[in-house]
Amino acid sequence: MPSIFTKIINGDIPCYKIAEDDDNFAFLDINPNAEGHTLCVPKKEVDKILDLDEEAYMKLMAFSRKVGKAIEAAIDCKRVGMTVIGLEVPHVHVHLIPLHSMKNATFQHKESLEAQEFEAIAHKIKEQLK
Amino acid sequence: MPSIFTKIINGDIPCYKIAEDDDNFAFLDINPNAEGHTLCVPKKEVDKILDLDEEAYMKLMAFSRKVGKAIEAAIDCKRVGMTVIGLEVPHVHVHLIPLHSMKNATFQHKESLEAQEFEAIAHKIKEQLK
Repeated sequence: MPSIFTKIINGDIPCYKIAEDDDNFAFLDINPNAEGHTLCVPKKEVDKILDLDEEAYMKLMAFSRKVGKAIEAAIDCKRVGMTVIGLEVPHVHVHLIPLHSMKNATFQHKESLEAQEFEAIAHKIKEQLK
Repeated sequence: MPSIFTKIINGDIPCYKIAEDDDNFAFLDINPNAEGHTLCVPKKEVDKILDLDEEAYMKLMAFSRKVGKAIEAAIDCKRVGMTVIGLEVPHVHVHLIPLHSMKNATFQHKESLEAQEFEAIAHKIKEQLK
């Protein structure tokens, strides 16, 4: 059965899409640690990041850097943090999180946003990727 | 003034060293989220990860993958997580953290280890890098 991220990538579940290339896909986390919290996911469904082959891993990291720089330019924050955990969804995902304080990095504080807010955030980040 | 990590890399502050190449250095975090928690640090002192140039960033990520795979082989855990925050020490560092549960990823639970335990952990990880 495809992972929830594969369903998002295939368009079977809607998302606030940020970017896509041949190998990777980025969209807003709908349960964000902070406004602008984005997930970067390889299209190939692999559970653990260290099980990606070196080429796929390096492509994901280059893609995450590009998206991360756009987030840092678009969203007011001290810096963008990067986190890979993966204990919940068995499909590699890099969290890119605008950090204001350590609170945004612990995954215990969540922001509640409306659809219009997600759309506005996605638009601002995508503008930086043009 | 050099960062605490530059002092560690230069040998002015002792550490439990894991690995080193021309550009990067890895050592055990002495305030670990879990046994085997390791920091990968570029020798060049840059504050934010997204301010590293692409070549330095990609080298750090390749180095972190190699060290992370050694940790995953050496330390009993569900997987190794990767986190970059950087709100405390203004010198890029990738946390590689053996994860047993979400508790190990939140930076709020810390393990207290003796010197001999750190030494034994470092030895086990280094064996996997040979």
